[in-house]
Amino acid sequence: MTNKRGLIVLSGGMDSVTLLYEHQADIALALSFDYGSKHNARELPYARLHCERLGIEHLTIPLSFISQYFQSALLQGGGDIPKGSYDEQNMASTVVPFRNGIMLSIAAGLAESRRLDRVYIANHFGDHAIYPDCRASFIQPMHSAVYEGTNNHVSIEAPYTDISKGDIATHGKRLGIDYSETWSCYEGGDVQCGTCATCIERREAMQEARIIDPTIYKENA
Amino acid sequence: MTNKRGLIVLSGGMDSVTLLYEHQADIALALSFDYGSKHNARELPYARLHCERLGIEHLTIPLSFISQYFQSALLQGGGDIPKGSYDEQNMASTVVPFRNGIMLSIAAGLAESRRLDRVYIANHFGDHAIYPDCRASFIQPMHSAVYEGTNNHVSIEAPYTDISKGDIATHGKRLGIDYSETWSCYEGGDVQCGTCATCIERREAMQEARIIDPTIYKENA
Repeated sequence: MTNKRGLIVLSGGMDSVTLLYEHQADIALALSFDYGSKHNARELPYARLHCERLGIEHLTIPLSFISQYFQSALLQGGGDIPKGSYDEQNMASTVVPFRNGIMLSIAAGLAESRRLDRVYIANHFGDHAIYPDCRASFIQPMHSAVYEGTNNHVSIEAPYTDISKGDIATHGKRLGIDYSETWSCYEGGDVQCGTCATCIERREAMQEARIIDPTIYKENA
Repeated sequence: MTNKRGLIVLSGGMDSVTLLYEHQADIALALSFDYGSKHNARELPYARLHCERLGIEHLTIPLSFISQYFQSALLQGGGDIPKGSYDEQNMASTVVPFRNGIMLSIAAGLAESRRLDRVYIANHFGDHAIYPDCRASFIQPMHSAVYEGTNNHVSIEAPYTDISKGDIATHGKRLGIDYSETWSCYEGGDVQCGTCATCIERREAMQEARIIDPTIYKENA
């Protein structure tokens, strides 16, 4: 018997991998989603790797309807990933409409099916400007909807909502996480490009946390 | 060019078919979900039929992860559908955890992708006792989550939340809907059984609305 009550939405990026290690004592199941993004094939193996290492069950759910019907530059065939740093104009094309709502809803239903009642997600403050489904103004009503809409009152645990990616990296440093075993780059190439907005954000977060960046980028491959 | 702003979650049952006819002037797209229930194969052709008749685009999205990982008597291989009328004890096994949350989230994402900003759903007052994701206490925060979590502020329109299935049938009578072209029965046989809780509720709704029930049930097949 386990007393674990949690399920985590796990992409294989820095943020959700940090959350996985931080709350591993409460996490019975990790859930990844393959929604047809350019970088799913690069990040999902890291999600699997960390779960195997921690002895946590890991499922990947394909959401083929997203690549089939949704519009986003993040998706295969969705156009180019914009270059440069994050700002609202530049990166708006990478929004996958209501992606966090879809992932949290499926996670809530599966949690109830497994008699778990906590869903962890690693949205953070740096996401807010560009992604509406990462803000507290989304997370709070989504928690209420999930809590009221399940018989076992599933809750949404989003402990990074008000902290930065640099703060998350500081948590990871304390936990001893090797961030070379995570994937950020939206391009989804053989190595991380180092120059897209997500790569820039990744590098800045490690600088803020005073971590020597172990990532192999295109420039040092 | 169309001024239609709506997308509807359409099962092919009495309630959502009535909603489709009632708001057809605003509905650009109807969305059905094949989640592996015993009766999906019976109800989905009716969803398609009504959309074809009204000239409304219709998509069916398969959610194979539900039948693969979720627990419910409603699903194929999920055990027997309980007999008798709806009451909380009896029918609890037919809950598909957070089904409406999952369907509404996908609908919201697709609405944003299509530049639509209203999602119609036909949950009603009679569902409330047994299904937590049909109540106003779920619909209200779900609306807020969808509204805040999309860039074009998608809203959830659930006009039947506070009325009964009998009231819905009265709307349908006024609209001239032939309810023999809808499916309710959870058993999913060749004809509707007439004796499961859903069939009983269907029959009572038509009685309340003083409609001569045109359905072929097992007893009159």
